[in-house]
Amino acid sequence: MISEKMIHMVNNSSAIRAMFEEGAKMAAQYGAENVYDYSLGNPNVAAPPQVKETIRELLEKEDPVRLHGYMNNAGFEEVRQTIAEFLNRKYNTSFSMKNILMTVGAAGGLNVILKTLLNPGDEVITFAPYFGEYRSYVSNFDGKLVEISPDTETFQPNLKELPKKITPKTKALIINTPNNPTGVVYSEETIQKLAEILNEKQKEFGTAIYLISDEPYRELVYDGAKVPYLTGYYDNTIVGYSFSKSLSLPGERIGYLVMPDSLTDGDLIISAAAVANRILGFVNAPGLMQLAVAECLDCKADVEYYNRNRKLLYDTLKRLGFSCIKPEGAFYLFVKSPVEDEKAFCEKAKEFHLLLVPGSSFGCSGFVRLAYCVKYETIVNSIPAFEQLAKVYFGGDQ
Amino acid sequence: MISEKMIHMVNNSSAIRAMFEEGAKMAAQYGAENVYDYSLGNPNVAAPPQVKETIRELLEKEDPVRLHGYMNNAGFEEVRQTIAEFLNRKYNTSFSMKNILMTVGAAGGLNVILKTLLNPGDEVITFAPYFGEYRSYVSNFDGKLVEISPDTETFQPNLKELPKKITPKTKALIINTPNNPTGVVYSEETIQKLAEILNEKQKEFGTAIYLISDEPYRELVYDGAKVPYLTGYYDNTIVGYSFSKSLSLPGERIGYLVMPDSLTDGDLIISAAAVANRILGFVNAPGLMQLAVAECLDCKADVEYYNRNRKLLYDTLKRLGFSCIKPEGAFYLFVKSPVEDEKAFCEKAKEFHLLLVPGSSFGCSGFVRLAYCVKYETIVNSIPAFEQLAKVYFGGDQ
Repeated sequence: MISEKMIHMVNNSSAIRAMFEEGAKMAAQYGAENVYDYSLGNPNVAAPPQVKETIRELLEKEDPVRLHGYMNNAGFEEVRQTIAEFLNRKYNTSFSMKNILMTVGAAGGLNVILKTLLNPGDEVITFAPYFGEYRSYVSNFDGKLVEISPDTETFQPNLKELPKKITPKTKALIINTPNNPTGVVYSEETIQKLAEILNEKQKEFGTAIYLISDEPYRELVYDGAKVPYLTGYYDNTIVGYSFSKSLSLPGERIGYLVMPDSLTDGDLIISAAAVANRILGFVNAPGLMQLAVAECLDCKADVEYYNRNRKLLYDTLKRLGFSCIKPEGAFYLFVKSPVEDEKAFCEKAKEFHLLLVPGSSFGCSGFVRLAYCVKYETIVNSIPAFEQLAKVYFGGDQ
Repeated sequence: MISEKMIHMVNNSSAIRAMFEEGAKMAAQYGAENVYDYSLGNPNVAAPPQVKETIRELLEKEDPVRLHGYMNNAGFEEVRQTIAEFLNRKYNTSFSMKNILMTVGAAGGLNVILKTLLNPGDEVITFAPYFGEYRSYVSNFDGKLVEISPDTETFQPNLKELPKKITPKTKALIINTPNNPTGVVYSEETIQKLAEILNEKQKEFGTAIYLISDEPYRELVYDGAKVPYLTGYYDNTIVGYSFSKSLSLPGERIGYLVMPDSLTDGDLIISAAAVANRILGFVNAPGLMQLAVAECLDCKADVEYYNRNRKLLYDTLKRLGFSCIKPEGAFYLFVKSPVEDEKAFCEKAKEFHLLLVPGSSFGCSGFVRLAYCVKYETIVNSIPAFEQLAKVYFGGDQ
């Protein structure tokens, strides 16, 4: 009796849930400390103490009617202004309050902007490997997700293939840098070439192609890697940001969209996005958290924690003969499966209590994703399991 | 370049925004204390002090990784179990955790359940007058909203017209009691008859017709009015609840759906709704607020505050010759316009700095809505303005 679209979604989700449930079962059977769950992107780093302090102060000083009340669907005005000014200082931009829309996380923001932009049948391009939810988000508005095949050498976006995939129906391109699942940061050169291609195609087709930059991992970078701020490279850029990882608040659902004045039909998009936020049922981003994050823009979850995990896991896997790109950001490693069928590899890993996610979930089979936002001890304790796994494929002592 | 559906929505919203902006302009011109804004359903009653206390305690005692982290898309398990047990005690139901899905307010919940249920072209019935957003929510999933014309004598749902409007395409019926905009509570007799009609039609067409009960005003009732808990009357009932009004937390976006085991395809609906919560971009209801409301289920915003407002405004309007139903719940009065064109009446009211909402926004022209969730002083101060307005239509001294 339910929606046919949803029956399909439930079946897909069941596979993922089955994996989680198997993980829980394994934890019950062998003890949680003996199961090495690299499947989930749930930060294991506490929110910076300023978050707690700020919330406590807000509860003391703010009138609860205002603190917990409705505000403009776009969010509290002073929160939006504070964020605009923060971005202007940091990225030399010139945003004001009107360019910022507070959202229920980046997932909320992406849905708001896709609702705003898409007509049924419109095409949205993304580069494989990509966060699998993009497919659902685009499908929510009857758009068509168009994949660009991966460059499995560098995991930079495959710009050779891009021009061939852009059509007059291309409404948007979603990119995600630092990237889930590869941890790769798109270089400035990549961004410049990408902007060039998009500008040419806009001219060729007389259309606007919006570049939607999904940036939940912007603050999580290592070794001084630079993440270009995309509005400076391409006029039709819309940024979706989340505090889920930067402040370790994933369950609080707080983020924002940046919609610059330079957008084609910018004013209309800005108005429509606020309406979309309302009618999709978000109404507004959670109020207390809006006010809290605005006072914590200079804070950051402990990136060194992730960096230590990154080093240990990367070095271990390389030492054991696995091959993967050293990530410059986010908290994922994308490892080449030693056999073509990466699902079989995941099954084998499970025998050693290692839970990995097949790359086909990200539109890139032949690889597996490891989320290293786990406890450091989990990585230490999992090393013998990886050693045994390596032996299966590479033999001998590693 | 944007979505055609959204252009239409933006135009509609512009009219409402124009009204708000005019209100703001009037406040700037005449002083906020001289403008009587009855247009917004934004509670002016503070959250009960237990909410602040609970949040403060949660910040102290909970591990921030858990407190602010991802959980199951349906919400924290113990929160869902606590709510299930609370409902069981209060309404003699037999829910468990699995029947409760935590949502981003009632608006989030309604979108989740409509996404779960609707195929394009499916019909969703509602009784006029109704909350105008239902139209947008149903349209989000390409459903068709079917209105039942109002019974302007009692503002109980018009059950005579209902059977004629139910077709094999009827997937759901949304009701809202206590009602926005009338304040009417649907009687037990009404509910029983409604259930009877739905059961007959389900049998006739061999379909499932889901009764979606939108209940943000459940706790706001006066004079001991009883609001029947609908799952006890009709098996295919889904309840959408919000803490926006009961705990004065509208900006925090926290509520839940109740999906009983008795639903046709209940297990599928329960699974699909959790997936819908994820893919619509809500992901989960805000975590800190989930844990906070679970400890405040026995608390309530100060209903006596609203009751005092209700009495003063209702008595004043009746004394002046206006006609309206005495509301038993919520915080709205639905007043008959003294002239057929209620928009003209709203314009006239504005001359006396009274901001009212035309009934046509609720599918019921000829009436206007007054939201009395304002400060008591606003009502006191507005009486001379109502007196002048009454003189225009009824003449003489009232």
